[in-house]
Amino acid sequence: MTREEVRRLALEGKDRLGLNWPQVGRAIGRSPVYAAMLAYGYGAATTEEADGLAKALGLPDEARAVLTKAPHREPSGPWPPTDPFVYRLYEVVLLYGPVFKDVAHELFGDGIMSAIDMAVGIEKVEDPAGVPRMVLTLNGKWLQYKKF
Amino acid sequence: MTREEVRRLALEGKDRLGLNWPQVGRAIGRSPVYAAMLAYGYGAATTEEADGLAKALGLPDEARAVLTKAPHREPSGPWPPTDPFVYRLYEVVLLYGPVFKDVAHELFGDGIMSAIDMAVGIEKVEDPAGVPRMVLTLNGKWLQYKKF
Amino acid sequence: MTREEVRRLALEGKDRLGLNWPQVGRAIGRSPVYAAMLAYGYGAATTEEADGLAKALGLPDEARAVLTKAPHREPSGPWPPTDPFVYRLYEVVLLYGPVFKDVAHELFGDGIMSAIDMAVGIEKVEDPAGVPRMVLTLNGKWLQYKKF
Amino acid sequence: MTREEVRRLALEGKDRLGLNWPQVGRAIGRSPVYAAMLAYGYGAATTEEADGLAKALGLPDEARAVLTKAPHREPSGPWPPTDPFVYRLYEVVLLYGPVFKDVAHELFGDGIMSAIDMAVGIEKVEDPAGVPRMVLTLNGKWLQYKKF
Amino acid sequence: MTREEVRRLALEGKDRLGLNWPQVGRAIGRSPVYAAMLAYGYGAATTEEADGLAKALGLPDEARAVLTKAPHREPSGPWPPTDPFVYRLYEVVLLYGPVFKDVAHELFGDGIMSAIDMAVGIEKVEDPAGVPRMVLTLNGKWLQYKKF
Amino acid sequence: MTREEVRRLALEGKDRLGLNWPQVGRAIGRSPVYAAMLAYGYGAATTEEADGLAKALGLPDEARAVLTKAPHREPSGPWPPTDPFVYRLYEVVLLYGPVFKDVAHELFGDGIMSAIDMAVGIEKVEDPAGVPRMVLTLNGKWLQYKKF
Amino acid sequence: MTREEVRRLALEGKDRLGLNWPQVGRAIGRSPVYAAMLAYGYGAATTEEADGLAKALGLPDEARAVLTKAPHREPSGPWPPTDPFVYRLYEVVLLYGPVFKDVAHELFGDGIMSAIDMAVGIEKVEDPAGVPRMVLTLNGKWLQYKKF
Amino acid sequence: MTREEVRRLALEGKDRLGLNWPQVGRAIGRSPVYAAMLAYGYGAATTEEADGLAKALGLPDEARAVLTKAPHREPSGPWPPTDPFVYRLYEVVLLYGPVFKDVAHELFGDGIMSAIDMAVGIEKVEDPAGVPRMVLTLNGKWLQYKKF
Amino acid sequence: MTREEVRRLALEGKDRLGLNWPQVGRAIGRSPVYAAMLAYGYGAATTEEADGLAKALGLPDEARAVLTKAPHREPSGPWPPTDPFVYRLYEVVLLYGPVFKDVAHELFGDGIMSAIDMAVGIEKVEDPAGVPRMVLTLNGKWLQYKKF
Amino acid sequence: MTREEVRRLALEGKDRLGLNWPQVGRAIGRSPVYAAMLAYGYGAATTEEADGLAKALGLPDEARAVLTKAPHREPSGPWPPTDPFVYRLYEVVLLYGPVFKDVAHELFGDGIMSAIDMAVGIEKVEDPAGVPRMVLTLNGKWLQYKKF
Repeated sequence: MTREEVRRLALEGKDRLGLNWPQVGRAIGRSPVYAAMLAYGYGAATTEEADGLAKALGLPDEARAVLTKAPHREPSGPWPPTDPFVYRLYEVVLLYGPVFKDVAHELFGDGIMSAIDMAVGIEKVEDPAGVPRMVLTLNGKWLQYKKF
Repeated sequence: MTREEVRRLALEGKDRLGLNWPQVGRAIGRSPVYAAMLAYGYGAATTEEADGLAKALGLPDEARAVLTKAPHREPSGPWPPTDPFVYRLYEVVLLYGPVFKDVAHELFGDGIMSAIDMAVGIEKVEDPAGVPRMVLTLNGKWLQYKKF
Repeated sequence: MTREEVRRLALEGKDRLGLNWPQVGRAIGRSPVYAAMLAYGYGAATTEEADGLAKALGLPDEARAVLTKAPHREPSGPWPPTDPFVYRLYEVVLLYGPVFKDVAHELFGDGIMSAIDMAVGIEKVEDPAGVPRMVLTLNGKWLQYKKF
Repeated sequence: MTREEVRRLALEGKDRLGLNWPQVGRAIGRSPVYAAMLAYGYGAATTEEADGLAKALGLPDEARAVLTKAPHREPSGPWPPTDPFVYRLYEVVLLYGPVFKDVAHELFGDGIMSAIDMAVGIEKVEDPAGVPRMVLTLNGKWLQYKKF
Repeated sequence: MTREEVRRLALEGKDRLGLNWPQVGRAIGRSPVYAAMLAYGYGAATTEEADGLAKALGLPDEARAVLTKAPHREPSGPWPPTDPFVYRLYEVVLLYGPVFKDVAHELFGDGIMSAIDMAVGIEKVEDPAGVPRMVLTLNGKWLQYKKF
Repeated sequence: MTREEVRRLALEGKDRLGLNWPQVGRAIGRSPVYAAMLAYGYGAATTEEADGLAKALGLPDEARAVLTKAPHREPSGPWPPTDPFVYRLYEVVLLYGPVFKDVAHELFGDGIMSAIDMAVGIEKVEDPAGVPRMVLTLNGKWLQYKKF
Repeated sequence: MTREEVRRLALEGKDRLGLNWPQVGRAIGRSPVYAAMLAYGYGAATTEEADGLAKALGLPDEARAVLTKAPHREPSGPWPPTDPFVYRLYEVVLLYGPVFKDVAHELFGDGIMSAIDMAVGIEKVEDPAGVPRMVLTLNGKWLQYKKF
Repeated sequence: MTREEVRRLALEGKDRLGLNWPQVGRAIGRSPVYAAMLAYGYGAATTEEADGLAKALGLPDEARAVLTKAPHREPSGPWPPTDPFVYRLYEVVLLYGPVFKDVAHELFGDGIMSAIDMAVGIEKVEDPAGVPRMVLTLNGKWLQYKKF
Repeated sequence: MTREEVRRLALEGKDRLGLNWPQVGRAIGRSPVYAAMLAYGYGAATTEEADGLAKALGLPDEARAVLTKAPHREPSGPWPPTDPFVYRLYEVVLLYGPVFKDVAHELFGDGIMSAIDMAVGIEKVEDPAGVPRMVLTLNGKWLQYKKF
Repeated sequence: MTREEVRRLALEGKDRLGLNWPQVGRAIGRSPVYAAMLAYGYGAATTEEADGLAKALGLPDEARAVLTKAPHREPSGPWPPTDPFVYRLYEVVLLYGPVFKDVAHELFGDGIMSAIDMAVGIEKVEDPAGVPRMVLTLNGKWLQYKKF
């Protein structure tokens, strides 16, 4: 059973059972985005998380072993992204990435925001004027370049 | 005078005068990131903003006209990104973009987070354990696909 | 059942039943182009639209659930386009896109024509000299860059 | 004197003289978009058009000879497009091009909309709800595939 | 039944029946190259042509409907071309295309040779010195850039 | 003096002297297309051809040595081609190249049409119906694959 | 039966029967490299060669017809090459190709070494110092650029 | 002084002094191809070779230091190659590289022909039938994969 | 049975039997990394190694013949790498490769570190401060460029 | 003064003064490889390091300010690498990267070896058999994927 099959089964199970990501997250004691990342195959679940996901999403037993392995991370769609939702994020990095770097270096010195130790939040904020806003928060540990 | 020349002069002026982006932002009544985006040439400044930037950064007069034009937005470095700071953001979109889309669609239905009406914040959060964290916040208006 | 299978079934059904896109559009109260976009999998149908499409095109029940999900938008053919019809449109954007941008900025200031809130029309206009013309109309909401 | 130099001089002249594209168009009896295309170097001007453009935009004499030559058409910016205005048009062709082809073939049979004999219009339409819309119209001669 | 399946069946039928392209062409009253293009799926056959091809090449009934549809034109091999026959043509366009354009513009003004209304001939010319020559003739309608 | 400089001088000289390619060809006893290829730098001129070109086009002495060297053949514009004239030829090879190969193999067996020993003709053919046609003829020696 | 299937069967047959390429070559009266090229599908075998290969390698009858057709030549692995053996050859052409061209032009004038009429030899040469050397010989007809 | 400047000076000197590569090779006691590789900048010359090249080709003193440095090897033309001479070699590797590998492995086992310890020969062989042949010989040390 | 199938069976066997790479390595008398490379298909096993692997990992008999063949080396994942573990190594080569070359040339002169005769070690080093470090050691024979 | 200019000056100064990287490293109390990375512009020097480099390599005063800024890291040569030294490292990552990942995950679990906190060593090891070996050591902090 491959990562892609587990992903498909997980998404089908979530649909069939009428769950949402916050519910899946609560089932394993994790944030909604992190739970979705595990279901998509972008993380190595602990045994408890794998059991929780399998139970919550109705996955077969052998999916649990797959979920606990360190995954080879590969994109799940075309790249450069063709989907407009993903492209807008890509556009932000393409155009403004070096600006963010400049502002960050002023605050931190020479380094990077870790993509390994990073929490992600997605929230819906209602706007009194009527159209809601999406707020994406990337919260990563700062890694300073070391000297040797 | 091109965008690239204004960018170079703006960054040199900021260095020479010992300014930081929050100070540049305050000089024009904008956020630090937005002020940096204008200086890099990723926005059309109002006359007041152009005057403020020119004054704060010691730019020549003709830079003001350049700053107020609607820019052709082009990356200021190689693409795909080779700089590790920018690459980490790219990696997040590459791998997790479709996951974010899934979570967002659950909250909002079919649409995108606008990259046109988007506020960006970059903050340094001290961690009691000793290593600070960087928090990048993208706050964009949700655009729902329209039907015709 | 995947988007691609629903697309194939929809196009076969349309052929088998001898329908044209205006008829499909009328069956769901939408424009011909929008109806075609739904059938190709480039939109999230409402329950009513999914029912209407399924009925009009003879689709199986499970296709309806697929039609109502927010789709991952991917091209349905090679890219850059090899088909001459699509290439001619690509050529127009490749060569004249920046000219259109210049003319538009003069009218609107710094912003974009939304591809999310955009109506598309395709019409055949007979020319008295004998060869008809195709008129493609893209009608999109103007999104002005916001300041923060 | 190259096309690129004439383009730069034309755009500078237009700025310096405070002209807009409709005014440039009227100076040579052409549409605003077509006038802009000539100034950018995407067409071979007639002698009258070259004289009109040179006079209206304050171009040097030798620019006129350049304007009347059949140009080698090359993009004036990066490709794939990085500017969000141009990208949104690219996205429309990328995702919906084959849908437009399907609708068009139903109307016309097997052929293409000419990019050689094509009129382009860009208009601003005020929306009572407050946000204007941009309407881009591509009006091209239909070319039917010939048989031999 | 897809275009690719019809292509395979057509080529197998031609082999099995020991036909050559001039014979296939005569069966439908078209040139050898055009007949081959239809069999490969690069044109929309008339009902008569589809009937003629199906009869001449022993195709099943449902292939006829496929043959009469306006095709999505896609390459039938790798691109850039790896086959030396096709590469030599590619090389000619790569290196000499702009030279041909210059010579053609001198004859015709600003425009293109249509790839939509184009007859193609391939002939073998015996050379008295012993080695034959291939003559490829592309005969296309000239399309002059229109002004608006 | 580089190939590119000689090309520029040759094209300027041709313009300044009001010559056309057939006249340049006659000046060196070659076809118009071949003369243009030499001027663009796509061939090694004989001493007589170099003298003839230099005299006809008013080139400086040192251009003659450049013209007689075996050139490194490189495209003179972007690739894939963005100019519509060149793209139409590219499209023909992209889509129909394997069809031409099939027809040619039927006539000749396994081999290629040489791009080294190839004569090129470009002609304007008036059409009684009013729109002229361009005829491009590629006449190359057939090279049969050898066995060893 | 496709070229790829014949290739697979040929290589399996060679393994099963414990043959080497010189033996396969002798079975059809050709060089080892040429015999391997035929087996891989990079040439059109004569009827005798096809019979000989089929007999030597235990191929089914229908493989013979496939072997005698003029092949569409496509790479049998990834490109640019990832295999170190093939990459080293690629590296030689990448870096030294223009040097070889310079040396060759000094000997021959403007032209190419034919890849159509080319014999290839691969030999193992023992070195007294203990490590053998591989000698790859490409022997191709020189094709001089023709003038017209 | 860069590698590219030394290359240009070396080639100009060779032309001006009417030398050929065998003569340059003899001046430094190396093969013609190796001498050309040094002049193009694809090797680190010994002090003696650098002196010999400088003397033979009339190079300035500072060129000698450049010639003796270990070079960063970069292609001296476009890649993939557009020049037909270089492309034909590229085509041989593209299509037949895996065949050569198969034949070589039969002779040597698992390994590669070194591109570091490789002698290259280019010879002109007259053919009694009138057209000469070019023979390119690559003679490289075999490197066997090691086990650990 | 293909390399990819053997790889899959080997990894499944290792999981099923609860082995680690050092254990697999000991079973064939090789280092853990080399044993893993053989299992992934990146080397030609000796008969003893193939027997050892088959026995240790429970592979079917025919896998042994596959393991002993000289492999066509192809990447087992997307390239450029999308997995963060592999990308970090790629980033090191992308950015610092030329620096390593400079340092190495100072030590060795003009040459390369062989990727054919190279031992690889991966170790975990505990750090008293609590976070372990990974040490990757590439130990390759130096190959000096030869002169001819 | 740009990073590229400082790099050029640093390398020229090192040559002129006859220094090697270990000496440069000692001048600033860093390892040879790290000192080279600073000189190439791949790190932000401390004030002391910048002073030390400027003194050791004879750099002008303004180079010091450049050396202390957080750099935009860009490759200093073509990519994919064309230089054989760099390519061999690239080949190792291309082919064996996923194998290294597998071995590392067995030791560490799901994570990466940091390219930010990584020490690099390059050593020459004499081999009694006569040919020295190069040993490249990458020593990076292990970063474990965090859960949220």
